[in-house]
Amino acid sequence: VGKPVFTSDRLYEGQLPSGTVTGLAWTAMGGSVLYIEATALARRRSDPDKPATAPPMLAVTGQLGNVMKESSQIALLVARRQLQARGKDGFFEEHELFLHCPEGATPKDGPSAGVTMTTALLSLAMKKPIPTDLAMTGEVSLNGKVLAVGGIKEKTIAARRAGCKTLIFPEANRRDFDELPKYLQDGLNVHFATHFDEVFDVAFKEAEEAANAA
Amino acid sequence: VGKPVFTSDRLYEGQLPSGTVTGLAWTAMGGSVLYIEATALARRRSDPDKPATAPPMLAVTGQLGNVMKESSQIALLVARRQLQARGKDGFFEEHELFLHCPEGATPKDGPSAGVTMTTALLSLAMKKPIPTDLAMTGEVSLNGKVLAVGGIKEKTIAARRAGCKTLIFPEANRRDFDELPKYLQDGLNVHFATHFDEVFDVAFKEAEEAANAA
Amino acid sequence: VGKPVFTSDRLYEGQLPSGTVTGLAWTAMGGSVLYIEATALARRRSDPDKPATAPPMLAVTGQLGNVMKESSQIALLVARRQLQARGKDGFFEEHELFLHCPEGATPKDGPSAGVTMTTALLSLAMKKPIPTDLAMTGEVSLNGKVLAVGGIKEKTIAARRAGCKTLIFPEANRRDFDELPKYLQDGLNVHFATHFDEVFDVAFKEAEEAANAA
Repeated sequence: VGKPVFTSDRLYEGQLPSGTVTGLAWTAMGGSVLYIEATALARRRSDPDKPATAPPMLAVTGQLGNVMKESSQIALLVARRQLQARGKDGFFEEHELFLHCPEGATPKDGPSAGVTMTTALLSLAMKKPIPTDLAMTGEVSLNGKVLAVGGIKEKTIAARRAGCKTLIFPEANRRDFDELPKYLQDGLNVHFATHFDEVFDVAFKEAEEAANAA
Repeated sequence: VGKPVFTSDRLYEGQLPSGTVTGLAWTAMGGSVLYIEATALARRRSDPDKPATAPPMLAVTGQLGNVMKESSQIALLVARRQLQARGKDGFFEEHELFLHCPEGATPKDGPSAGVTMTTALLSLAMKKPIPTDLAMTGEVSLNGKVLAVGGIKEKTIAARRAGCKTLIFPEANRRDFDELPKYLQDGLNVHFATHFDEVFDVAFKEAEEAANAA
Repeated sequence: VGKPVFTSDRLYEGQLPSGTVTGLAWTAMGGSVLYIEATALARRRSDPDKPATAPPMLAVTGQLGNVMKESSQIALLVARRQLQARGKDGFFEEHELFLHCPEGATPKDGPSAGVTMTTALLSLAMKKPIPTDLAMTGEVSLNGKVLAVGGIKEKTIAARRAGCKTLIFPEANRRDFDELPKYLQDGLNVHFATHFDEVFDVAFKEAEEAANAA
């Protein structure tokens, strides 16, 4: 009420905590950065020697619409498969999982935070922070395919305004970015992904580099 | 928002992963290919030596309406019976199951993806990929009967546009296809099914042939 | 109906019980104090020697809207993480938790009671009462970030009217407070928080001082 939808100010300054990733949203009001915060608490077990057997539970908050809620379920599955494929299974089963999109009063929807949510859950599970200047957008399918999204121009402007220099967009949106005026493209390092594997490589290799540089 | 319902671009190029099948949908906007993606993760058990006892659970995403959600339940049952009849029981009980229809923001409904969902679950369980140029449509009943669907003309056009050469339609739709102009029929290999057994034979024999040819 | 929204009379005189915190609300009718009451009852367990394993449950009452209900979930998570970080885990798992905002007939919504709810749950778990003259407002994110809220002027007036001398506002609202006329600022001790850690320090150090002075 009286508050602009998706304020453009950066919520986070400096290093992001593990589990928090900068996404990009697009509304009738224009583009904006949209943080995804994932956290977890260890599940209590009656017998800590036995493995956790219940399927993971993910609670989502932030006034997410139905499409975005489904996105979070897909994100959890893709993240679990990524972790399993890397031989690091267990985290998602052994913790209560939470995912939030500030600001809490702003309704949000759409599938384009799929890659962001997946990355947030993996960053949390692997305890690897994501670089503050990396922003991403893209729908993700159950097989990890990265699908086209809308608002590439508005999202690029929002990313620039928030000081993000490295962007991940869906490969299917490459033309949308190429058609932007030069002054919007300049100084950005943009990766185009067809599969979440490529998002993973950029997000976590970047994380390594940032750690090495520090 | 600003995005056409059911884009006609192929989401998948080259070999489909096991569990993913090309369906055909039909809306007021015309026909389109509609992928069904099925995936699974092993269920964790407190005692891995004992068999899994809980009934299978299938989570569905992709903004499916009530009819399509029920379709997915029927598809799981028909797939379990198919597997059991072939002496390969167990997979559906030992895994958490997921089924998704990209794109996540497009509402979808109707029973005509029944054969596609059933095939996706079987392809996943048997780890046999389905040929990329095979597309199918048909409602399936609890006993495996394949029932008539709408939009045969629009679906045929969509299949051609997506490069699908082999189609499975319900036997009850044979006349609808026969009445199409010659230029829409030419070059297509169409199978008409009365029971899912026939869909199975086409989908997995084709898979064998494709594997042999490779 | 017929009752003013958010009456400004103090509901509590003298020492607040542990778990009750003075918040500040803002409506079209102006600002007002808004108490958050948290209470708990020990969970009954079949075997008291084994640890409680079910995730905490929080029941909320007081005609809270959807945003405020989500706020309470986030508050519980942030409170659990605060307790865990201080090595005092267990309370939230071993009790049934209740959170109420009098007056029960007045609909309330919005995210700005986030810090108040979190403080109420921690005050309850730690059995440390919060000073009667401390009032607070601020949205809280899953990572404990304190986010800007609206109505700083109206909330400051309400706090003065209720005799609250120490206020906690989000750092992002510092300018809003600085722009208030001198007569509204005078005699107030205002803390500006960027993270819930700072709210914790003010709320419970104040609590200590109050206990020492008594």
